[in-house]
Amino acid sequence: MNAHYPAVTVLGLGSMGSALAAALSDRGHPTTVWNRSAHKAEALVARGALPAATAGEAVAASPLVVACVLDYDALRTVLDPVADTLAGRTLVNLTSGSPEQARETAEWARSHGADYLDGAIMTTPPGVGSPEMMFFYSGPEPVFEAHRPILAALGDPLYLGADPGTASLYDAALLGLMWAVLTGWLHGTALVGAEGTQATAFTPVAVRWLTAVAGFMTTYAPQVDAGRYPGDDATVDVQIATIDHLLHAAEARGLDNALPALLKATMERAKAAGHGSDSYASVIEVLRGPSAGG
Amino acid sequence: MNAHYPAVTVLGLGSMGSALAAALSDRGHPTTVWNRSAHKAEALVARGALPAATAGEAVAASPLVVACVLDYDALRTVLDPVADTLAGRTLVNLTSGSPEQARETAEWARSHGADYLDGAIMTTPPGVGSPEMMFFYSGPEPVFEAHRPILAALGDPLYLGADPGTASLYDAALLGLMWAVLTGWLHGTALVGAEGTQATAFTPVAVRWLTAVAGFMTTYAPQVDAGRYPGDDATVDVQIATIDHLLHAAEARGLDNALPALLKATMERAKAAGHGSDSYASVIEVLRGPSAGG
Ligand SMILES: NC(=O)c1ccc[n+]([C@@H]2O[C@H](COP(=O)([O-])OP(=O)(O)OC[C@H]3O[C@@H](n4cnc5c(N)ncnc54)[C@H](OP(=O)(O)O)[C@@H]3O)[C@@H](O)[C@H]2O)c1
Ligand SMILES: NC(=O)c1ccc[n+]([C@@H]2O[C@H](COP(=O)([O-])OP(=O)(O)OC[C@H]3O[C@@H](n4cnc5c(N)ncnc54)[C@H](OP(=O)(O)O)[C@@H]3O)[C@@H](O)[C@H]2O)c1
Repeated sequence: MNAHYPAVTVLGLGSMGSALAAALSDRGHPTTVWNRSAHKAEALVARGALPAATAGEAVAASPLVVACVLDYDALRTVLDPVADTLAGRTLVNLTSGSPEQARETAEWARSHGADYLDGAIMTTPPGVGSPEMMFFYSGPEPVFEAHRPILAALGDPLYLGADPGTASLYDAALLGLMWAVLTGWLHGTALVGAEGTQATAFTPVAVRWLTAVAGFMTTYAPQVDAGRYPGDDATVDVQIATIDHLLHAAEARGLDNALPALLKATMERAKAAGHGSDSYASVIEVLRGPSAGG
Repeated sequence: MNAHYPAVTVLGLGSMGSALAAALSDRGHPTTVWNRSAHKAEALVARGALPAATAGEAVAASPLVVACVLDYDALRTVLDPVADTLAGRTLVNLTSGSPEQARETAEWARSHGADYLDGAIMTTPPGVGSPEMMFFYSGPEPVFEAHRPILAALGDPLYLGADPGTASLYDAALLGLMWAVLTGWLHGTALVGAEGTQATAFTPVAVRWLTAVAGFMTTYAPQVDAGRYPGDDATVDVQIATIDHLLHAAEARGLDNALPALLKATMERAKAAGHGSDSYASVIEVLRGPSAGG
């Protein structure tokens, strides 16, 4: 074992687990790998990873165990039989799930004498290993700090706090943002596409526009924290007037308008709640739920 | 008149028209200004702009006339009485509206012997004058090229083509993207906020995530143009499985789930149309309308 490159074990070699193991092994960490279907270890072993015949053998090989399987049911199927071997080691769970599942698993790990970090991977397998890609971690800070150098082999490790559920909560929040962005972009792409503009012509402009929108988010964030939404730049009333141009233009071209119609209805609810002359940030009052919107 | 800084007229001095006039005047263009409510010209005149007593006098003062009023009804109220004076000049209309309104107004201008460009302003008044901010223009390319140096005083002028409706179409498409992004961001902010995370802590992470999402858009744009959506990175099926984590986490915290529920329903429609193992880009088939989705 090399002191600068501590040993690490990866459980689960699907497309993501394989990318994690490859990044660790390529960085020089002695990387023990195991997967339910053993053949998925072969390419990694050819690249320098160490095979383990059983999950228990894999866990026993390293003080740090990274798990990345399909879901929490699969995780417990893999881990329950090897719980005793985990004692005194650190489990970093990168399987996607809910904050509640992360908290339960932290409790389970603690009850078996293991340290636990929950994580979320904000990239696809080809992005693993790039320092630009965000990996979220939550759990005890000393545990995170102890393993930060190893975790940095996977991407940029961001520590979010002691509650093990926070990484999953951020993951859900950012994936929700992603689906909203992608759907809004595809709707706009369909709109300009109806008049013959290629997606590859529109998208660089849309990407550049995201930078401006990120500026609005940065302006609005302190308004959300203060619970006051001065509409100096653009009010909810102005946005409501403007979205009709989109609805009409999209309808005239036969597009599905469910998304802009929902966005308009959401703005109308903010207006009904008294936010017509406030900024768009006031829409959060509606999103916080029926009781908070009124 | 200075040959390097040709004269320009601005009609409409609301918050946006005033910002346009200030940017032109500050850059050194002799800038004649007019507004229905005359007092709004005062601050600009104090700053060096030239007042006009009537809209006709204002139009007569410059070969290039920029109009920015509330909407197309207001535009025609201002321009109809001065149509003859516009002959031989160029009208650049930065009033927001639909592609159809832009085309009608181009026709109207042509019938009065005026050149016409339609434009859209992709920033708020404080952003006017910054070379980072996008201004879209559509209409005859020689007219755009002739006035590009003056228009560059307002922001980065992007020419979108001869059809005068294209600037408005892009405007609608990008505003739709903006509302989707802002609403998705506010939903995520409400989600992490339910567990005590400040918007100002979450937002820099969300802004950074937008860069990754922009990368997905750039990957997916050629798929849209090709009409083929290989799901190598992440499939619609995988996204559908993952969005349940968001729906559950948000529901458990009392949030309004209309947006993620709509996003899930849209993905389900893409799956029903045979795109379960395709990438998210295939969702555009659903957005192109009921007939294209099946
Ligand atoms: N792919 C991405 O872009 C991405 C991004 C962020 C997060 N993630 C998360 O990473 C995790 C893994 O995703 P992936 O893309 O690697 O999925 P995947 O390619 O489908 O791999 C699934 C893994 O889970 C294992 N597994 C499933 N059921 C099991 C069970 N009952 N017992 C033991 N092992 C079981 C599989 O083993 P077998 O090989 O034996 O079937 C395989 O190792 C998921 O939670 C996913 O949400 C993925
Ligand atoms: N503000 C932004 O962030 C922004 C961003 C992009 C695009 N835009 C577009 O820019 C245009 C102007 O917006 P704004 O923010 O400047 O609005 P604003 O501050 O409300 O100003 C409206 C302007 O329209 C004039 N006007 C309204 N009705 C009129 C009528 N019947 N006859 C003559 N003039 C009339 C007003 O004159 P009075 O002063 O006499 O009322 C004023 O000059 C709109 O189309 C808007 O969508 C604005």
